[in-house]
Amino acid sequence: MRKLSRRQFLANVALAGGSLAVYNTSLALDLIGGTEKLQTLDLKPAQGNKEVVILGGGVAGLATAYELGQAGYNVTILEASHRVGGRNLTLRHGDLIDELGNPNHCQFDDKPNLYMNAGPARIPGHHRRLLSYCKKFDVPLSIKANHNRLAWAHDKNAKMAGLNRQQYYVSDARGFLAELAWKALDKDAFDKPLSPEDMEKLADFVAGFGDLDKNGKYTGTYRSGAKTDRMLTHGPKVDPMPLQALVNHDYWHNGIPQMESFDWLSPLMEPKGGMDQVVEGFKRNIDAKVVLKAQVQSIDVGKDSVTVAYQHDGEMKTLTADYCFNNIPANFLPGIPNNFSKTYNEAINSFERRGLFKIGFQMKQRFWENEGIYGGISYTNERINQIWYPGHDIHAEKGIILGAYIWNQENIEYFSELPLPERLKVAAEQASAIHPKYASYIDNGVSIPWNRMNYMMGCGTSIPMEQHEQYFPIVQKPEGNRHFLIGDQVSFHPGWQEGALASVETALLQFNSLVKAA
Amino acid sequence: MRKLSRRQFLANVALAGGSLAVYNTSLALDLIGGTEKLQTLDLKPAQGNKEVVILGGGVAGLATAYELGQAGYNVTILEASHRVGGRNLTLRHGDLIDELGNPNHCQFDDKPNLYMNAGPARIPGHHRRLLSYCKKFDVPLSIKANHNRLAWAHDKNAKMAGLNRQQYYVSDARGFLAELAWKALDKDAFDKPLSPEDMEKLADFVAGFGDLDKNGKYTGTYRSGAKTDRMLTHGPKVDPMPLQALVNHDYWHNGIPQMESFDWLSPLMEPKGGMDQVVEGFKRNIDAKVVLKAQVQSIDVGKDSVTVAYQHDGEMKTLTADYCFNNIPANFLPGIPNNFSKTYNEAINSFERRGLFKIGFQMKQRFWENEGIYGGISYTNERINQIWYPGHDIHAEKGIILGAYIWNQENIEYFSELPLPERLKVAAEQASAIHPKYASYIDNGVSIPWNRMNYMMGCGTSIPMEQHEQYFPIVQKPEGNRHFLIGDQVSFHPGWQEGALASVETALLQFNSLVKAA
Repeated sequence: MRKLSRRQFLANVALAGGSLAVYNTSLALDLIGGTEKLQTLDLKPAQGNKEVVILGGGVAGLATAYELGQAGYNVTILEASHRVGGRNLTLRHGDLIDELGNPNHCQFDDKPNLYMNAGPARIPGHHRRLLSYCKKFDVPLSIKANHNRLAWAHDKNAKMAGLNRQQYYVSDARGFLAELAWKALDKDAFDKPLSPEDMEKLADFVAGFGDLDKNGKYTGTYRSGAKTDRMLTHGPKVDPMPLQALVNHDYWHNGIPQMESFDWLSPLMEPKGGMDQVVEGFKRNIDAKVVLKAQVQSIDVGKDSVTVAYQHDGEMKTLTADYCFNNIPANFLPGIPNNFSKTYNEAINSFERRGLFKIGFQMKQRFWENEGIYGGISYTNERINQIWYPGHDIHAEKGIILGAYIWNQENIEYFSELPLPERLKVAAEQASAIHPKYASYIDNGVSIPWNRMNYMMGCGTSIPMEQHEQYFPIVQKPEGNRHFLIGDQVSFHPGWQEGALASVETALLQFNSLVKAA
Repeated sequence: MRKLSRRQFLANVALAGGSLAVYNTSLALDLIGGTEKLQTLDLKPAQGNKEVVILGGGVAGLATAYELGQAGYNVTILEASHRVGGRNLTLRHGDLIDELGNPNHCQFDDKPNLYMNAGPARIPGHHRRLLSYCKKFDVPLSIKANHNRLAWAHDKNAKMAGLNRQQYYVSDARGFLAELAWKALDKDAFDKPLSPEDMEKLADFVAGFGDLDKNGKYTGTYRSGAKTDRMLTHGPKVDPMPLQALVNHDYWHNGIPQMESFDWLSPLMEPKGGMDQVVEGFKRNIDAKVVLKAQVQSIDVGKDSVTVAYQHDGEMKTLTADYCFNNIPANFLPGIPNNFSKTYNEAINSFERRGLFKIGFQMKQRFWENEGIYGGISYTNERINQIWYPGHDIHAEKGIILGAYIWNQENIEYFSELPLPERLKVAAEQASAIHPKYASYIDNGVSIPWNRMNYMMGCGTSIPMEQHEQYFPIVQKPEGNRHFLIGDQVSFHPGWQEGALASVETALLQFNSLVKAA
């Protein structure tokens, strides 16, 4: 552990002078971000019969089709699979789960509340692009709990306090941190820059943060509830756990990054009835030719057009368009013959294929509600990683639980190598440490290994961090002024629909400049 | 500021021995509280024609009527006002706001999504009693955001950083606290009880808590977002605010106690369509005679019965019943002649009348959604105290905002003394520091000064903390084995429906023992 020099620390906390304007309201109003605010695309209307081909009917492809259709272009979407939406996939009764070599069907009961978002499942309030489409297309939204302080944190290796309500860890963490900070106040660190009055306020702040007593000591807090009834008597507060138990708990490796991350701050939102209501919204509003089961075989960028060869109905076909927007997962692109420049192909080759694994269980009873848990996530360091509880259709008879949500590659591989019944069995076993009777509630289950899903074979595929500066400027610009890479993959938000839409916005703004200049 | 001795601190953080069993799962599963778990009332069926009179048709009265009706008692509810529900009041188009000397009507448009919960508005997942009634009566619930890190924190007195998204303060608070705590790690405090390995883990924990760099320094965090676009580039993180600006901000006096309090932990819930759906649920399921506009004039507890005199239709009437459950606001009780024991009346006289003040605005546009705010609360130290944004009917045209939520007595009085148009004007002015164009969106507004509402004249009325031990045991026991005080007022949760229901549970359990023993 390195030492922090006193000088560094003081410099950091001392009152600065003129630079403070930055903290004023004017900037603060923009905190949710420069270009995250909606840009007006203001696309120039198509001049004559202009053709656009879009490769891949994921969210980026659909948004591009919508915008260019509005501007009067003739749009064709070539989609390799049997449906549009890409990873925006909501599973219901009877739906095909198109896993490579293991096609299977969702066994959920045929009821509108029994569905599972197999891909994206959450929308933050600052994802303005996606929200504006939801508004425009009348996609009904509801608040999603996301985090729930009453849900569980579990550490399979803990010697003590391995399973508790998250609030218990959160309150104790605040308490112990504040207690440590209070100790630092007693040192001579602040004698110079802080006035006695500010020092008093700082002490107040520290004590309030952790609910310390007047001696700066943390002795537990009613923030975690009481040991007994709190309604009719003043039950004693829960004892704090030992510091070692607290700091050793795995919760911090998963819970804090989730709860404090800008994209996961509560509350989030979800479309009522499933995330694919976004796809339905696009479908209702898009004027384009959609060719399903069309697999792209080659891409040729010419001076005035782009020619795409694709297999469809057992035949090889070609399509020549004025412009091409390419939403194909980057992990497939190196396998598709093209005439891109060496630089462009080098950038495309830099993408790393990632994965994501989800399991969903239909539960006979909403047992979590009897534990006081309505929505939110339990965290564990078992391979299943998280358990999500549905926050919609509260008090219904049955519900769909997310029984595993895994992005650790080793754990994805572990689960992917098991046959489906084994995947479900292991996931249920691992959850039993949190909910002892978990397995007894299961009606049936599904698994979605995105790294094995046909026509996708990955999720969150992206350029490695250390190559961002080198390759992002290349993939975010059109090739030959005719071919635009789109999708979350060319954004800093792989796995988010907003990343996909940001890529579309950028592509279309460049497209518009080119068209206007022509 | 007092000094914390090193010994005290070490004792606190050192690993304890055998007492650790307390942190194990078995207890943890009960963390949400002893008697907050549902008790089975198992009421003995009424023997013959037994009469029960319930004074006051608030939630406690309704729940008592339901339970005793189920057990076969003949139940009469005497309610002073024109409706049952008490403070569980949802205001819609045309509803009477029965303020003393200022009766007025709600001007909201006649649309199902335009309503305001004038009383209780939130249900935590651990309020098991209320939730069990919601489930039993098919009251549809949805997740309520309650807190929203993207909503605003405002300090009218701040010299800098007076208005920002809450996440900005939260992230910086975590950062600075962790930085202070890290300093304490550098001292010799831990050389004895913590192993080097644990010390390393503690440092990891502290750094992760605040997002410190490897030198234990806080230099801002992406948890607050970025200065520019984060979607397509790696925009620079927002600068931290100066420590003085952070600790001086009023947000901590309001935000922390709200966000960390056990009853306000996100997520909460709300009935779809308004909190009065709980009242409607009771009404659908209660078999009782309800007499509205019946004002109790005297209560006489006899050996085998209770006689209540009341005014109704301009006449004085009496009603004699076997048992009486009294839900009348405690601030009225000293004015109602009775033959209670001296001790019982002394306890009743100890109640202190409290207040609550709310303002609701119908807004022409849901402007907050354009700021990325979907549900939740903004905090300010203007008199209005809080602004609540609706989380239901997202992206609808109009919405009802809670424009003031005040429990500070001075501020309640300030607003109560103004005529209605002035109340609305001042509230709009105070909100303009947060939303500059606020006033321009207002269609109309309502105010609910609970301290001036007929037949209520208060809210959160309760026994002062220092007299809890003395008087709670008295008011929670029946008088003469015939008269039971009920309502949130005889719980430690005044202002919460769950407190009201806990009082009912306790009264009925005692009632049942008496009946069984008889």
